Amino acid sequence: MSLVLNREQLSEYLHQVFPQVERDFAVDSLDENSIVMRLLVEDRHLRPGGTVSGPSMFSLADVSVYAMILARKGRQSLAVTTGCSMDFMRKPEGTVDMIARCTLLKLGKSLAVGDVLMFTEGSDKPVARATMTYSLPPEGSAAAAFG
Amino acid sequence: MSLVLNREQLSEYLHQVFPQVERDFAVDSLDENSIVMRLLVEDRHLRPGGTVSGPSMFSLADVSVYAMILARKGRQSLAVTTGCSMDFMRKPEGTVDMIARCTLLKLGKSLAVGDVLMFTEGSDKPVARATMTYSLPPEGSAAAAFG
Amino acid sequence: MSLVLNREQLSEYLHQVFPQVERDFAVDSLDENSIVMRLLVEDRHLRPGGTVSGPSMFSLADVSVYAMILARKGRQSLAVTTGCSMDFMRKPEGTVDMIARCTLLKLGKSLAVGDVLMFTEGSDKPVARATMTYSLPPEGSAAAAFG
Amino acid sequence: MSLVLNREQLSEYLHQVFPQVERDFAVDSLDENSIVMRLLVEDRHLRPGGTVSGPSMFSLADVSVYAMILARKGRQSLAVTTGCSMDFMRKPEGTVDMIARCTLLKLGKSLAVGDVLMFTEGSDKPVARATMTYSLPPEGSAAAAFG
Repeated sequence: MSLVLNREQLSEYLHQVFPQVERDFAVDSLDENSIVMRLLVEDRHLRPGGTVSGPSMFSLADVSVYAMILARKGRQSLAVTTGCSMDFMRKPEGTVDMIARCTLLKLGKSLAVGDVLMFTEGSDKPVARATMTYSLPPEGSAAAAFG
Repeated sequence: MSLVLNREQLSEYLHQVFPQVERDFAVDSLDENSIVMRLLVEDRHLRPGGTVSGPSMFSLADVSVYAMILARKGRQSLAVTTGCSMDFMRKPEGTVDMIARCTLLKLGKSLAVGDVLMFTEGSDKPVARATMTYSLPPEGSAAAAFG
Repeated sequence: MSLVLNREQLSEYLHQVFPQVERDFAVDSLDENSIVMRLLVEDRHLRPGGTVSGPSMFSLADVSVYAMILARKGRQSLAVTTGCSMDFMRKPEGTVDMIARCTLLKLGKSLAVGDVLMFTEGSDKPVARATMTYSLPPEGSAAAAFG
Repeated sequence: MSLVLNREQLSEYLHQVFPQVERDFAVDSLDENSIVMRLLVEDRHLRPGGTVSGPSMFSLADVSVYAMILARKGRQSLAVTTGCSMDFMRKPEGTVDMIARCTLLKLGKSLAVGDVLMFTEGSDKPVARATMTYSLPPEGSAAAAFG
């Protein structure tokens, strides 16, 4: 139940395999069952009206849970996103970062589930929530798993 | 942001309007943003194999969020369930009660959203999670709202 | 891609393993990728107000997709429901049967996904929709798979 | 139940209010209850491995249902996405366009629901499915509705 990668190792690995992540996301904190991920909000994340776009929030939720799985399973992990449910509840500010608080609810042999609450930095009212599910390939398999 | 009904008033009202609730559910605790609801597990809640059935968990999640809305909005509330997402993560025991920990994420003028984690009593590993969404009728309206 | 059980064999098997199904559900039609399942609406499926209850619709969706998997994979199949999303869109009548039209979107080695539209019999406006996901145990395994 | 905007008017309006849509999406066909939307797949829609990214599929689903609502409600429509559920079922090709087939399941006074199946062009196996829900502001209101 312990971490295979710490916060620094995880950040470094994410930047290495997903170069675009480096300019979009930062890992604020990490422990065995939760992670806080920051979306470094820029114009490219906004939609008309100046709020953070739905696809940007989807990315934030997906990266948060994926990073949490990596931190627990290690660099060779090949989790594939199989499902997502989201609720958009308040208007996100486009002028400050967005903070995702992610909890890993299950990390089984073949299935992982993580919950994410997203906030405009400085507010404690959730802007959106997401649950992401992942298929995990069999141990030792090199191939990503699409079930 | 305060409660309109306390735990005793809420329990009494639920039993009055949903007589079948009395034998199935109990409110363990209640505060302004969260409720703990108990499913009094009996044979009728089980499926073959002796685990708590999916429909029973759906009911537990729905009653939890609905009760939380009642506690905040009062007896005249006519929330209608419009959406639900659930993930089933572990096998629930059929021999002890099931405990739902519900958090109200949003209670707006026309939309409410609640998150629910469900546990076999005595375990801290969630058996299932649910998010329930509700449409709230306009203030003063007697009619339930299906949008 | 062909059926392992036809409609009669499927109905017989469902009644055998889930005796309670016999009085609640009937298979109206079945082909390789879709099934039409009927909820034989009785008082026990209703909630106050006389509409079909949420848990009854959850059951209908779950049985529909599960039966479709059985028809394709055969009697030894041990699919476990891992996820569900539902939207409730209109008030279902409580005085006639409810009809579920289910399409199997994926039947992989370890994951199955089915979509369900539910109608009050005689109406072409969907009352609710559901997507159900299932984990399938490895071939030859006797154990149900919770991932 | 008829269209307020035809395909050409809808395309023109989308390009006008969402300039970025013009290079990403095209309306292939439109009728009263359904729309076929094309994602013009480019490198920016891909993730490492060369498949279409999750956020790109989220955008495709969201634009499809939003455009369908516009076509029915007209240019003044201010629908706000309130919920989303998606299942990712197969690996999308990154070398051809992606096609979304969207059906409007409900267009009420305050709530709209649309279903979307997404395909790699030329294949009839769905890559992903999505259901998107929207809150609609009261008639005559200029403000977007977050419930």
